[in-house]
Amino acid sequence: MIPLKRHIYYVSDGTGITAETLGHSLLTQFPDIEVVEVRAPFIDTPSKARDLAAAITRVAQKSGHRPIVFSTLVKPEVIAALNDTPALIIDLFATFIEPLEREFGVESTHTVGRLHGVGNSQTYQRRIEAINFALAHDDGITSDTTLAEADVILIGVSRCGKTPTSLFLAMTHAVKAANYPLIPEDFERGHLPAALRRHREKCFGLTISPERLAQIRAERRPNSEYAALETCRREVESALELMRREGIPWLDTTTKSIEEIATLVLLHLEKQRRYHHL
Amino acid sequence: MIPLKRHIYYVSDGTGITAETLGHSLLTQFPDIEVVEVRAPFIDTPSKARDLAAAITRVAQKSGHRPIVFSTLVKPEVIAALNDTPALIIDLFATFIEPLEREFGVESTHTVGRLHGVGNSQTYQRRIEAINFALAHDDGITSDTTLAEADVILIGVSRCGKTPTSLFLAMTHAVKAANYPLIPEDFERGHLPAALRRHREKCFGLTISPERLAQIRAERRPNSEYAALETCRREVESALELMRREGIPWLDTTTKSIEEIATLVLLHLEKQRRYHHL
Repeated sequence: MIPLKRHIYYVSDGTGITAETLGHSLLTQFPDIEVVEVRAPFIDTPSKARDLAAAITRVAQKSGHRPIVFSTLVKPEVIAALNDTPALIIDLFATFIEPLEREFGVESTHTVGRLHGVGNSQTYQRRIEAINFALAHDDGITSDTTLAEADVILIGVSRCGKTPTSLFLAMTHAVKAANYPLIPEDFERGHLPAALRRHREKCFGLTISPERLAQIRAERRPNSEYAALETCRREVESALELMRREGIPWLDTTTKSIEEIATLVLLHLEKQRRYHHL
Repeated sequence: MIPLKRHIYYVSDGTGITAETLGHSLLTQFPDIEVVEVRAPFIDTPSKARDLAAAITRVAQKSGHRPIVFSTLVKPEVIAALNDTPALIIDLFATFIEPLEREFGVESTHTVGRLHGVGNSQTYQRRIEAINFALAHDDGITSDTTLAEADVILIGVSRCGKTPTSLFLAMTHAVKAANYPLIPEDFERGHLPAALRRHREKCFGLTISPERLAQIRAERRPNSEYAALETCRREVESALELMRREGIPWLDTTTKSIEEIATLVLLHLEKQRRYHHL
């Protein structure tokens, strides 16, 4: 089979994040297509669109293939400037706005780049606060007064995925996530520290396979006691025992991405009715 | 006008992040439609889809309105279970996979939930490393040896947006971003500290309006010298002077979201050819 190398453009009047997410999602269905990806954000005037159209046309001529454009452009006069290129245009708004207008019985506003702008500054402010909260409550930095503010407290052994998950939850969903690493002291004590016990209903456990944990720890501290498989086995087992005893729900992160872990934590919070805003 | 309250479902066999991003983007075009949003991730069997379909049908009957479903479902047998509901289904894959198959001349794989899975574990690993890097180089924690690893070093006065931008760049694009807060010592010295000067070509400045800065700082330390408008004015001005003198490019974050700032930093890195992977 001839390898197909295609130029893919993510075109938007805003950040292009929606166009890129959409494009990546669709392209995962074509793993054999080799792609060269080009990000074209902030295309908000006909003149910028004409420059881009010229570049796309040049690439088409040079490569002998039609480029693919994933577009979330909204303004008709900007879109028009792209229509002259030989590209295949996958136009998100042109495709879906009309059925939605019909369904809602109202016209769309054709406003530009609203999704990833500061837009609703209250929501935006909550996200920034949640990031600051996650940073201030990372790795067991806890205080009883501020834990009262947490939406969730992630617990688990060191390097099981707590910190990236906390940051992702904050950044994407404005969830205030504290995280607390379970250490040998906790296992010897046999229960959670008092500060956490008072907020036990907010605790959510992350576990991981000892083999994967040893691998992750070895990248940071090769040949250490910390990364030894035996240590990892003992810690993971003690952590599970502790979580069972305290009645704390948990999930296994071994084969899950940050996005998947965060989505499962959100589902848990929605069930608990601790989280309402999408 | 009668307020329209519509139930919106984000349905996916994976995290649902693509469906949600798509839906949010389209709904920004209909600001008057009041929505109730429901996340339905990990719908990966016909049985889960049938349960969801039943719930959607109940909501339709109770509310008297057609729910809207944004779907990125891939498996035909799972999609089929949703087709019996009275919902308007905005189906990303059904709509766009076919033109892409025609264009590429190959069939899509119909594989499930690949985008936000661990998938390409090398790429995934790079993102986790970048997050660890951002945390280890936050707020001026620097060492010459590790700065050599940085893709970019964000500089600017305290609270102009460096930390959230660094974390977003790491999480989303695996960019290793250090950040360094400019403080009065830097202004008195009149140039960047030696460790940064050696990596001046990696430095990128963030600036902000003194008024907005005073507002942000006052939320953290009300009535402080730190948050006083006069302090903010002096710091912002000195920072700009320093960046001009050192020949460091910068952008104004006053009205920009993290996503917008990060996108502009990426464009800068692409121009400098420091960043290649999308």
